[in-house]
Amino acid sequence: MLLDLIRTGEATTRSQLAHATGLSRSTVATRVEHLLAEGLIAEVGEAPSSGGRPPAVLGLNQEAGVVLAVDMGATHARVAITDFGASPIGETALDLDIASGPENVLGTIDRVLISLLDSNERGPGEVKGIGIGVPGPVEYAAGRAVTPPIMPGWDGYPIRDRFVDRYHVPVLVDNDVNIMARGEHWVTAEPSDDFLFVKVGTGIGSGLILGGRLHRGAQGAAGDIGHIQVAAAEGIVCRCGNTGCLESVAGGRALAARLDVADTRAVVAMVKAGSRDAVQAVRESGRLIGQVLASTVNLLNPGTIVVGGDLAEAGDQLFAGIREVVYRRSTALATSRLQLIPSNLGDRAGVTGAAAMVIDHVLSPQRVDRTLSLATGGVR
Amino acid sequence: MLLDLIRTGEATTRSQLAHATGLSRSTVATRVEHLLAEGLIAEVGEAPSSGGRPPAVLGLNQEAGVVLAVDMGATHARVAITDFGASPIGETALDLDIASGPENVLGTIDRVLISLLDSNERGPGEVKGIGIGVPGPVEYAAGRAVTPPIMPGWDGYPIRDRFVDRYHVPVLVDNDVNIMARGEHWVTAEPSDDFLFVKVGTGIGSGLILGGRLHRGAQGAAGDIGHIQVAAAEGIVCRCGNTGCLESVAGGRALAARLDVADTRAVVAMVKAGSRDAVQAVRESGRLIGQVLASTVNLLNPGTIVVGGDLAEAGDQLFAGIREVVYRRSTALATSRLQLIPSNLGDRAGVTGAAAMVIDHVLSPQRVDRTLSLATGGVR
Repeated sequence: MLLDLIRTGEATTRSQLAHATGLSRSTVATRVEHLLAEGLIAEVGEAPSSGGRPPAVLGLNQEAGVVLAVDMGATHARVAITDFGASPIGETALDLDIASGPENVLGTIDRVLISLLDSNERGPGEVKGIGIGVPGPVEYAAGRAVTPPIMPGWDGYPIRDRFVDRYHVPVLVDNDVNIMARGEHWVTAEPSDDFLFVKVGTGIGSGLILGGRLHRGAQGAAGDIGHIQVAAAEGIVCRCGNTGCLESVAGGRALAARLDVADTRAVVAMVKAGSRDAVQAVRESGRLIGQVLASTVNLLNPGTIVVGGDLAEAGDQLFAGIREVVYRRSTALATSRLQLIPSNLGDRAGVTGAAAMVIDHVLSPQRVDRTLSLATGGVR
Repeated sequence: MLLDLIRTGEATTRSQLAHATGLSRSTVATRVEHLLAEGLIAEVGEAPSSGGRPPAVLGLNQEAGVVLAVDMGATHARVAITDFGASPIGETALDLDIASGPENVLGTIDRVLISLLDSNERGPGEVKGIGIGVPGPVEYAAGRAVTPPIMPGWDGYPIRDRFVDRYHVPVLVDNDVNIMARGEHWVTAEPSDDFLFVKVGTGIGSGLILGGRLHRGAQGAAGDIGHIQVAAAEGIVCRCGNTGCLESVAGGRALAARLDVADTRAVVAMVKAGSRDAVQAVRESGRLIGQVLASTVNLLNPGTIVVGGDLAEAGDQLFAGIREVVYRRSTALATSRLQLIPSNLGDRAGVTGAAAMVIDHVLSPQRVDRTLSLATGGVR
């Protein structure tokens, strides 16, 4: 709890922490000393004095160690080393074919990680944890993919164990859109605790942070808005096998097919070049996504919706369609203070979120409490 | 955390608690002693011995005190005294007109509470807390209604303070559908942490428990599925002023109007009497609700959906329509283990949930930690 308050900047001096938590000053002082000794936080400045010695401002210790972050897509990956604030130290983008199977793909990732550590003069001993995003559903607690439709050969593969065996640090594996949601949430100033990230790329998906925590659902399938059925797609067969799915009419693949170009990036290029057909298609895509988001706004009443993904690079055209429908079709109360904004991080949302996931985990009360408990002989 | 494990039965002996939390046995023993001394838990039995003295099984102390629970609707209310397990000790249903304003309505409720305490031979000193549900949006932290559409005169009224001044115990106020969700969650055996309660009555609403916690959203407006727009309602003006809302075609008021009867109960009576028109109308209503729930299942991947409210009394007819569409239109993964079941509690969901809300609050780690901290001089 202290760490959360410190990280978010809600309470950063010892007396603010005592006030915010209701703990006594002596309890706060003891815990803060321990977190400082562990190197998880640092005194990063001084607050204005109210008479005596100015109180120290506490912050996350960004030098507490490094984090390895991996964001895998269907055909490419981004791999990064970040500091303990999820800011990049080094980063590489590479092509890969996720369908070539886990041994092949993770072997490549492994080599890239080692070379990134080398070229940034960091040793494996400095690594505090590894965060990995994959393009499919994940059994989060076990760190493995489950029945991922576009990842043949990966079903049940122990992604986490492979890296734990090598690095002996916490390794966390999640769905790619979930880590993007975490990344955008991490860098948003005063983010709402109820936060929705929508990825509009080849397909359409979303990641939900609800009550400040990532929402995965009972089978880890939450956020799957691309396969919500919309009237405009009636009768159209989606790549998932079902008919009528949102992404089969509003995703990048659908637009590229309609405009007779290769892929989502080509659609965006047409919009930027002023093609009226492309502008209309993207705006209509925005309206359809807006329909689904309008329902989502009524259901969840999020404070912030961030829209990213390749098609979001088309900018205003996609947003105009989304905004038009969300504000018309959601209730007035639910949209009264809704922030509907473009991605801050673009391509970097995934690795930022993968690192943030690790940092949150290392700093989680359970883990830190357990360390504290061990450090003080188990009788706090 | 200990209390949660004890309440849910996940860990009920001291050694199970140590194992489940990672805390040392001595820490667990100290905390358990304190909770026993506070009277919040009790030794309710013995576990099988593994050699020595059989370990005590811990459980919530249902005799820890009583809870007052109030569930207000537009035209009637239910008021109960429960034990500390949310089981009823005494209960009264009464007619009231919520539109007659807070002074009037709460004056009546007050008198009913006092007479319930009297007739069950309980004194105000035994009351551990008061839970109240109201038919409109609520600012939960402040305990008051905010811009409630069907509660003229209640906007901003300090419902909580009125009862705190009288009883000097925690008073919690929430939306009626949220407390019904809590009630159903409380009595469901092994409930999913991701749990959706849908109320189909005159109107249509829902309450969401996500990650084990009630989800309210940024403005407390979450769960408002009755005003999600569906194609079948296009052009129909809803009582909310918008057009195309689910409840304007699938709610009890809409069905009663179509079948030319007085209210939802009359519709249910027609179904039970075998009216073909009523059966068709209710089944079609189920299909429309199913459309919205199918999107919700893809978005949230709940483990359990409970359907209640007056129209749910029509039973199989409503369920058949809902099931048909949810299983056809949601993804296979999200429905693979979905439980879609009728209400367990019927009319009693609200008061049960109002009591559960209070018990959860009284047992919450923050409150208990603070008490522990005070009790041990603030230096744990």
